[in-house]
Amino acid sequence: MPRYRLLIEYDGRPYHGLQAQDGLASVQGAIERAVKGFCGQELRLHAAGRTDTGVHATGQVVHIDLEKDWKPEVVRNALNAHLVPEPIVVLDAQVAPEGWHARFSATGRRYIYRIMNRTAPPALDQGRVWHVKKPLDAAAMNEAAQVLVGHHDFTTFRDLGCQAKSPMKTLDVARVWREGEQVLLEFASRSFLHRQVRSMTGSLAEVGVGRWTRDDLRAALEARDRKACGPVAPSCGLYLTGVVYGD
Amino acid sequence: MPRYRLLIEYDGRPYHGLQAQDGLASVQGAIERAVKGFCGQELRLHAAGRTDTGVHATGQVVHIDLEKDWKPEVVRNALNAHLVPEPIVVLDAQVAPEGWHARFSATGRRYIYRIMNRTAPPALDQGRVWHVKKPLDAAAMNEAAQVLVGHHDFTTFRDLGCQAKSPMKTLDVARVWREGEQVLLEFASRSFLHRQVRSMTGSLAEVGVGRWTRDDLRAALEARDRKACGPVAPSCGLYLTGVVYGD
Repeated sequence: MPRYRLLIEYDGRPYHGLQAQDGLASVQGAIERAVKGFCGQELRLHAAGRTDTGVHATGQVVHIDLEKDWKPEVVRNALNAHLVPEPIVVLDAQVAPEGWHARFSATGRRYIYRIMNRTAPPALDQGRVWHVKKPLDAAAMNEAAQVLVGHHDFTTFRDLGCQAKSPMKTLDVARVWREGEQVLLEFASRSFLHRQVRSMTGSLAEVGVGRWTRDDLRAALEARDRKACGPVAPSCGLYLTGVVYGD
Repeated sequence: MPRYRLLIEYDGRPYHGLQAQDGLASVQGAIERAVKGFCGQELRLHAAGRTDTGVHATGQVVHIDLEKDWKPEVVRNALNAHLVPEPIVVLDAQVAPEGWHARFSATGRRYIYRIMNRTAPPALDQGRVWHVKKPLDAAAMNEAAQVLVGHHDFTTFRDLGCQAKSPMKTLDVARVWREGEQVLLEFASRSFLHRQVRSMTGSLAEVGVGRWTRDDLRAALEARDRKACGPVAPSCGLYLTGVVYGD
């Protein structure tokens, strides 16, 4: 029973997140239906990152166990054909090595958060960026973001419903920069708490508009208290851009 | 009666083009409704470029004549409020100088055409790029594109329904380059014939996949015959990115 590793891109707008939930459209449900359409098999896929409602991906990784041996490019092309017209595509398919697991073998996740920072709302990028009207100081945000890098208790930046056993995480990369009208934030870690990226982004935006200083952000982190978090940034600007494996 | 010059961005997908047509959704119709909602005035706007069904803009310019003097930023913000949830926004509003006309005063138009050049179809960019699976040689396309630059009879690259009096146009810029999975084409001219950019793009794609040489493209241009044109590229990849005025 070969295991296939699939690299997935999706527009999160039509979905109530990655994970299948009764009666709600999900990325997982759409891919599982495509598998059934392709080879008749009913299965559950496993994903590296459980993205929330409205969150996008350019580099999600999932795995599926198929009963038959197929060439990986046949799996990719057939799933893409069956996924039409869903805004989900399989960018790449590979046969996974023995024992490899999309979620448990992952050693790193990378997210990009996109802010459209201009007076006018987005037209072409509706639902794909967070619109912030007030000018953001990306350099100040980047400097403050370094406070978050390292091994910390991220309780402040963790959703109250988060089911992780521990709030301790190691943030490897936090980077903020401007590209024209957009301010981009990049975060990398072995794994993230629920809504951690959106919580950190919302708090960094407070620094960007000048309401918070770098020290305020540090105090929020050290408070280890959800109430110390800034407003959580909306899901529409968030992209899972890559998953790292030891291999 | 002050004339306002508006810089407009829109996602062309929901519209049967810029121009109002009975019973069909149009960018013009949506903006005119927003004007009516804002100040009760019924008017016709004038646009620099009449984009086709599904064509996008990041830098369309239109003008409207309002009965009352408003601060330009009031016009911009009020129209944007009335345009929700249409994927159309006013990026900027200015009071136009005496005698200025969005269409007739324009001295240049600039378009970008976006091709997604990879095996997998686009998910996040559905309806916003042309998907070409076969690898494109962007350098060969750029070299061939120079054949089109200059003053020519563009009959080959003109839609049969084009209403321009003459097929003679001067193409100032034709540039093709790759950015990762995307191949981008940029064209600038005082004005374009109907479907000229999409016709040139489709023919350049023939060069990109190796079916045409630079000399084939030159022969097509010199044929001055619509039948010599390559397949016309779809509207979804086309963006009006800017309009130049003498001022």
